[in-house]
Amino acid sequence: MRSILIIGAGKSTSALIQYLQNKSDQENLRLIIADLNLEQAQKLAGNHKNSQALKLDIFNENDRKSAISEADIVISMLPARFHIEVAKDCISLEKNLVTASYVSKEMEALSEQVKSKGLIFMNEIGVDPGIDHMSAMQVIDRIRQSGGKMLLFESFTGGLVAPESDNNLWHYKFTWNPRNVVVAGQGGAAEFIQEGQYKYIPYHRLFRRTEFLEVEGYGKFEGLANRNSLAYQKVYGLENIKTLYRGTLRRVGFSKAWNMFVQLGMTDDTYTMQNSEHMSYRDFINAFLPYSPTDSVELKMRHSLKIDQDDLMWEKLLELDLFNKNKTIGIKDATPAQALQKILEEKWTLAPDDKDMIVMYHKFGYELNGEKKQIDSTMVHIGEDQTFTAMAKTVGLPVGIATLKILNKEIKTPGVLRPISQEVYEPILKELEDFGIVFKEKEVPYLGYNIDNVVG
Amino acid sequence: MRSILIIGAGKSTSALIQYLQNKSDQENLRLIIADLNLEQAQKLAGNHKNSQALKLDIFNENDRKSAISEADIVISMLPARFHIEVAKDCISLEKNLVTASYVSKEMEALSEQVKSKGLIFMNEIGVDPGIDHMSAMQVIDRIRQSGGKMLLFESFTGGLVAPESDNNLWHYKFTWNPRNVVVAGQGGAAEFIQEGQYKYIPYHRLFRRTEFLEVEGYGKFEGLANRNSLAYQKVYGLENIKTLYRGTLRRVGFSKAWNMFVQLGMTDDTYTMQNSEHMSYRDFINAFLPYSPTDSVELKMRHSLKIDQDDLMWEKLLELDLFNKNKTIGIKDATPAQALQKILEEKWTLAPDDKDMIVMYHKFGYELNGEKKQIDSTMVHIGEDQTFTAMAKTVGLPVGIATLKILNKEIKTPGVLRPISQEVYEPILKELEDFGIVFKEKEVPYLGYNIDNVVG
Repeated sequence: MRSILIIGAGKSTSALIQYLQNKSDQENLRLIIADLNLEQAQKLAGNHKNSQALKLDIFNENDRKSAISEADIVISMLPARFHIEVAKDCISLEKNLVTASYVSKEMEALSEQVKSKGLIFMNEIGVDPGIDHMSAMQVIDRIRQSGGKMLLFESFTGGLVAPESDNNLWHYKFTWNPRNVVVAGQGGAAEFIQEGQYKYIPYHRLFRRTEFLEVEGYGKFEGLANRNSLAYQKVYGLENIKTLYRGTLRRVGFSKAWNMFVQLGMTDDTYTMQNSEHMSYRDFINAFLPYSPTDSVELKMRHSLKIDQDDLMWEKLLELDLFNKNKTIGIKDATPAQALQKILEEKWTLAPDDKDMIVMYHKFGYELNGEKKQIDSTMVHIGEDQTFTAMAKTVGLPVGIATLKILNKEIKTPGVLRPISQEVYEPILKELEDFGIVFKEKEVPYLGYNIDNVVG
Repeated sequence: MRSILIIGAGKSTSALIQYLQNKSDQENLRLIIADLNLEQAQKLAGNHKNSQALKLDIFNENDRKSAISEADIVISMLPARFHIEVAKDCISLEKNLVTASYVSKEMEALSEQVKSKGLIFMNEIGVDPGIDHMSAMQVIDRIRQSGGKMLLFESFTGGLVAPESDNNLWHYKFTWNPRNVVVAGQGGAAEFIQEGQYKYIPYHRLFRRTEFLEVEGYGKFEGLANRNSLAYQKVYGLENIKTLYRGTLRRVGFSKAWNMFVQLGMTDDTYTMQNSEHMSYRDFINAFLPYSPTDSVELKMRHSLKIDQDDLMWEKLLELDLFNKNKTIGIKDATPAQALQKILEEKWTLAPDDKDMIVMYHKFGYELNGEKKQIDSTMVHIGEDQTFTAMAKTVGLPVGIATLKILNKEIKTPGVLRPISQEVYEPILKELEDFGIVFKEKEVPYLGYNIDNVVG
C-alpha cells in the first residue's frame, strides 16, 4: 500500500480525508493522520480500515523525520508558518509535498533543491489560493492560445453564509477564522491597476470603494479590494495588462455597515484597551466617541457617523446588541479588534444547521482580432453541513486530487509550484466537477471600467 | 575657564550658542561647538573669542571620548537616538549632560549609575518637551501646595507661522521638520482621559476631533490630540486625574483641510508608489481616486470627499497647485507622504522675511475647599528672524540656562531628570522671562468637558 501522511488534522481536513478514504481501496492507499491532538486525529481517521491516527509534535525533529520517512507523499495542513521544517525534511528524505498555503519566501528558496531532486512541492491548491488560480489560468491560457490579448483580469472570492441560513441583517456569519475577518484589509493600502493606472486605497476607505457583482441565481454581491492584487501579475504572466484587481465578496450592504467599525477605530489590533475585561459593550463603543455629560452613546454614535434616523445601518448595530450595558467584553488586555470579535461571535457564529457558501467571480477582458470581448466566470458551492462545509470541500478536494495525481505520476513536472500549468489545472478542475464544483462562463460586452458606458 | 561641549550644531542651536556666548565673559566659559560638518560648527562659533569649532564624528569612539573628557559639562543637540553613546561616556568620564530630547528607555536605564556618581543628566528641557513641563509643573505644584486637588490638565503646543507672515489659506508654513508634520499622528490611536473615561481616536479621525481655543490678542486656534497623553500621568503625578489631554495647536480650519489628505491616503509612509519620479501632481492625486473614463480628477476629488462647490477647502487645494499636470514629484520610490511633502514644501516654506511663532496653552482644573476652579495659562513667542526663530529660542534658551545653572551648582539634585522639580523650573522660568518667554494666567469658570454648559 502507498502511504499518505497528512500533518495537521484541523477543521479544514474533513473533506480531504473523506476523499482519500473513499479512494483508498481502489488506489491502494494508507492514510496516516498526524496531529499534536491525538483525539482530533482519531476523530478524523474514524473507523476507516485504511486510516490511522498518529500523535505528532512537529517540533520534535526525530518524530517528524520518522513519520515523513515512512510516507510516499506528504500533505501539510499546518498553519502556513509551520510548513518549512516539513518541507526541508521532504527534500532530504525525497518526498513530494502538497500544501494549500501561499508560497512563502522560505518555501520559494527551496526551489532549486526541489527541482534538482525531481520532487514536486505543490502549494496554493485549496481555495483562494487554489481553485481561483486553476479556474483563472484555464480561461487565460485558452484566450491566449486562441490569439487573444488579455486586457483585464478581476477575481473575487467570498466565504459566506448559504442563502438558506442567511437570517441576519448583515447577511454574514463567520464561516472561517473570525479574527481574519475582523482585521481583514489592515497593514497597508490596497494596490491595483485600472485601465493602466495604479490605484491605492487606504484601509479606512476600503469598505467604501466597493463594486457590485451579480451571480445568476444568487443575487447581488459586493466586491472590495484585496491588498495584494499586483502579486498575481507575474504569477499569471499578465505583465502588460490594463486592469488587474483581486477582491473579497460580501453581500450588498455589509461593507458600508462594517465601515462604521473601521471609522470609529474598533478593528484596530495594535494596542490594548484599559479595563477591557470589565468593560461593557456600551463602554466599548463609548471609548471611541467624544465625552458628553448629557448625550447618550446612541446619539453620539449617530452624530459621529452621520447615521440618519431611518438608516438600516442602525438596525444592524442594534442586532449586535452593541449598546448593551450588562454584557461585558471579558477579555483581559483586549485590543479593539479582539473586543469587537467577541461581540460579533455572539451573533455571527453558525447555528448547528447552518450551511456556508463559497462564491467566486472572475472577469476576463481581452482583445481578439481587433475586437474587445469579455468572459465572466462564476462558481458557487454550498456546504453540506458543519463538517463538510463548502470551505472544507473547496480546500480539501483539490488538495486530495492533486496528491493522488502526483502519487500516480499524472502530475510530474518538478519544482516548488502553484497550480497554474495546464498539466495541473485541467485534470483537477475536471475531477472537481464530479463534486459539484463547476464554473459557469458567459460572454458579456467588454466595457473595461466604463461599466455604465458613460460618454464624457 | 570652564568648558562647555556642544555636540551637534543644527539649526536649533543658534539661540543656545548666542546665549552662552553672551554669558561667556561674565561666567568664564569656553564653548566647544562640535559637529561632523566643521563648516556648520564654524558658522555657529562665528568670530566669538570664547568659541571654538571642532570637527567630530560621534561614531569615532576615541575622538568622542577625548572631546567629552576635556569638557566641564556636555550638551547633546544630536538627534535623540544618538544621545546614548554620549551619555555612557559622560558616566565613565563623570560629566553632567543636558539634552532637549525625550528620555529614552536606554537613557532611563542609566538612572542608578548617574545617581550613584552624583551626576545630573537633564533631558526634555527644550520646548514640547521642556517649557511645557516647567510651566505646567509650576502651576500644578502651586495648586497642590495650596491644598487643591487636580481634576483636569490639558496642554497644547503649536509651532506655527507668525501672524505678520501668515499669508496663505492654510495659515500654516513649515517652521520645523516638514516630514514630522506630514506623518504627525500616525502609528497608533490617540489615547487620553475625559472625565474619568478612557478615549481612543484612530489616526483617520484625529483631524476631525479638534476643539477650539482662544489666545488673547492672537485669535482662535484648534487643538488636536497627541498620541501620548497618558505618558504624562505618572511623570506629573496625576494618577487620579479625571481629564488628561495633550494636543497640538493649528490655526482654525487647518485640520479639516488636512483631513482631505488623510482620507485619501496621501500621508501614508508605509509603501512606495509606482513611477513616483515622473508622476505629475495631478497623477499623484488621481492614484487615490477611482478610475473614470470621463470625469475629471477635480470632480472625482470633490465627489469622493463631498466637497461642496463653495467650500473654502477647495481653494486650499488649488492654492497648493495640486491638480497641476506639468509639475512632477521627482522622487524615486517615494511614499505618498514623501510626495505630499514635496508638493507642500513648494508653498509652505518660510520666505526669507517670514517669522515663526510658538504657542502654548495649558488648562488646569482643580477643586479647592469644595469649589471647582480653573486656571488657563498661555504663552506666545514670535521669532526674530530665520536664525533666531521662536523654535530655536524656546528650545535653546532653557537648554543654555539649565546648563549654566548646573555648572554653577544652582541645580544640584542628581539623576536622569526632566525639568519637573521646583529647583529646576523656578529659576529657569524666571530667567526665560528676560527673553520675553512669559506665561499669562487667568482664572476661568471650571466646566470640565461640559464646555457649552449644556443641561441634559
